[in-house]
Amino acid sequence: MKIKLKSPLDMHLHLREGEMLKLVAPLTAQTFAGAIIMPNLVPPVDNLPRLLAYREEILAATAGEVFEPYMTLFFRNYTREELEAAREHITAIKLYPAGITTNSEGGVKELADAEATLALMEELGIPLLVHGETNGFVMDREREFLSVYEQIATKFPRLKIVMEHITTAHAVDLLDRFENLHATVTAHHLIITLDDVAGGMLNPHLFCKPIAKRPTDRDALLAAALRAHPKLSLGTDSAPHPQHKKECCGCAAGVFTAPITLALMADLFAKHDALDKLQAFVSGNAQQIYGVTPPEKIVTLRDTAMTIPASYGDVIPMWAGKQLGWSVVG
Amino acid sequence: MKIKLKSPLDMHLHLREGEMLKLVAPLTAQTFAGAIIMPNLVPPVDNLPRLLAYREEILAATAGEVFEPYMTLFFRNYTREELEAAREHITAIKLYPAGITTNSEGGVKELADAEATLALMEELGIPLLVHGETNGFVMDREREFLSVYEQIATKFPRLKIVMEHITTAHAVDLLDRFENLHATVTAHHLIITLDDVAGGMLNPHLFCKPIAKRPTDRDALLAAALRAHPKLSLGTDSAPHPQHKKECCGCAAGVFTAPITLALMADLFAKHDALDKLQAFVSGNAQQIYGVTPPEKIVTLRDTAMTIPASYGDVIPMWAGKQLGWSVVG
Repeated sequence: MKIKLKSPLDMHLHLREGEMLKLVAPLTAQTFAGAIIMPNLVPPVDNLPRLLAYREEILAATAGEVFEPYMTLFFRNYTREELEAAREHITAIKLYPAGITTNSEGGVKELADAEATLALMEELGIPLLVHGETNGFVMDREREFLSVYEQIATKFPRLKIVMEHITTAHAVDLLDRFENLHATVTAHHLIITLDDVAGGMLNPHLFCKPIAKRPTDRDALLAAALRAHPKLSLGTDSAPHPQHKKECCGCAAGVFTAPITLALMADLFAKHDALDKLQAFVSGNAQQIYGVTPPEKIVTLRDTAMTIPASYGDVIPMWAGKQLGWSVVG
Repeated sequence: MKIKLKSPLDMHLHLREGEMLKLVAPLTAQTFAGAIIMPNLVPPVDNLPRLLAYREEILAATAGEVFEPYMTLFFRNYTREELEAAREHITAIKLYPAGITTNSEGGVKELADAEATLALMEELGIPLLVHGETNGFVMDREREFLSVYEQIATKFPRLKIVMEHITTAHAVDLLDRFENLHATVTAHHLIITLDDVAGGMLNPHLFCKPIAKRPTDRDALLAAALRAHPKLSLGTDSAPHPQHKKECCGCAAGVFTAPITLALMADLFAKHDALDKLQAFVSGNAQQIYGVTPPEKIVTLRDTAMTIPASYGDVIPMWAGKQLGWSVVG
């Protein structure tokens, strides 16, 4: 069996900078036509010159591939002039509550402080992407944050809001309660639960933020993906860390899936007899939600087995060494 | 400030064998007057000759210290003759559901299969120690197992049952519902939650089975310990793994606390103004519950700071490098 995906998009991607970017950006560009690029570098991408330079770095690393980096700014209080100048160069702005995840120390502390900029974004039609977690107990952080989504969605009804990398059934439910709420979901959160991270041996390569939740949560996310819920798109949150930062005393959070995501998704959707929904989940929904038209690119997948490589450079992918039933063949 | 503890007991301890035993057994014997020795070796300690040889190995490794190893057999179906012969040499029998934790592959699959031996144990007055977890979702495993405790406690009302290393408020509640139910709790479960294991960076040195639960669970355990609940005793579940098995792709479960437990407990009980309950928690309750009279040993602790060593041989302790407000001074 064979399927062809048109212009797959990854609506949540970490590329880092420098040598790591040179390693991982081509791995995404090989199979994706475009990706939303996260701005949580050190220092963050929070001004236009830095953003344009970062975009050039990505284009240089992916030269020869059909690949569009959809750039984002790191949320801070921006002036009207800044946002008007940035508008044509960005797809969205990413908001991190302060200190919640990798390199988010400069994030937002109080929502009230953010409202002037949110109002400008609403006016200028700039989508807001949010890492929605509180500082609470690790299994409750996303659920506790949902009321913040409700507040923003209510106060700024024309602001397009994306709940990034949702992990709970509660977030899936919320999606249908507010017209202007959307979401991304990762490949791994459709598959794993906390049991895979800490139920047997501790597995640092499946440790990410938000942490994987209960089987009932995973099942709700998977059900939404398999019916290609129109407000949901694939965003891998693929996040490379060098091996020594994953296999150490304190392991960094992030799962690296970029090069295997489409095979993983084809395998998953095929198992659930939902291959007809995959195009919408990996590209069509995103085009609607973000208003983007990706470059043309056809990726062909076939149900022939592949073994996930042990590593890509110094980065260990999810399920290294495991077999997948599907593979990218062109 | 200074306190003297009489004959502290660790009612749940893993000593392993060979070189590891030689490393860790003296670390326990330095501050504890006795300890319940877990039998989940490979192969398990499930016959009298092996148990007696293991006891000799422990005594040799702790020579020069006042220290009594309270031996246990690994639960299997024993004959009356076997149990009668073993009775004077053992303090209890430890039951592991099959495959739940380190070296438990030979454990019990169906409770019904265990009933003949449980009846003999009840008759002969041999306490039953249980690793109470199901194969369910990692955060639910202990709660799901509680109904098994209820069944055993009801069916064998004169059998003394110890719920080992409890981690949930539900287990604390159950303690008061059945006359013949008792429990041990570790030092670390009085202190940490899942947040400490996976809320920030992933911390393999705080990864154990059962996994640390919610703040509300930790608070319920701590409250029971601080009032020296008479059916609860300290059992560290201190479990050494060589460093390379903790800081690797798949990290083994177990927290090593033996050498720091009493300082940790003095620090904790002092902070909560409950030092007057510490003697019961670390020895008095256990003497009542298990019917043991430990050798005399006085351990003096003082509120002078100590830094937890980075390692003991190849074993990394809990909170390596951190400061504690109390230390053992004699």
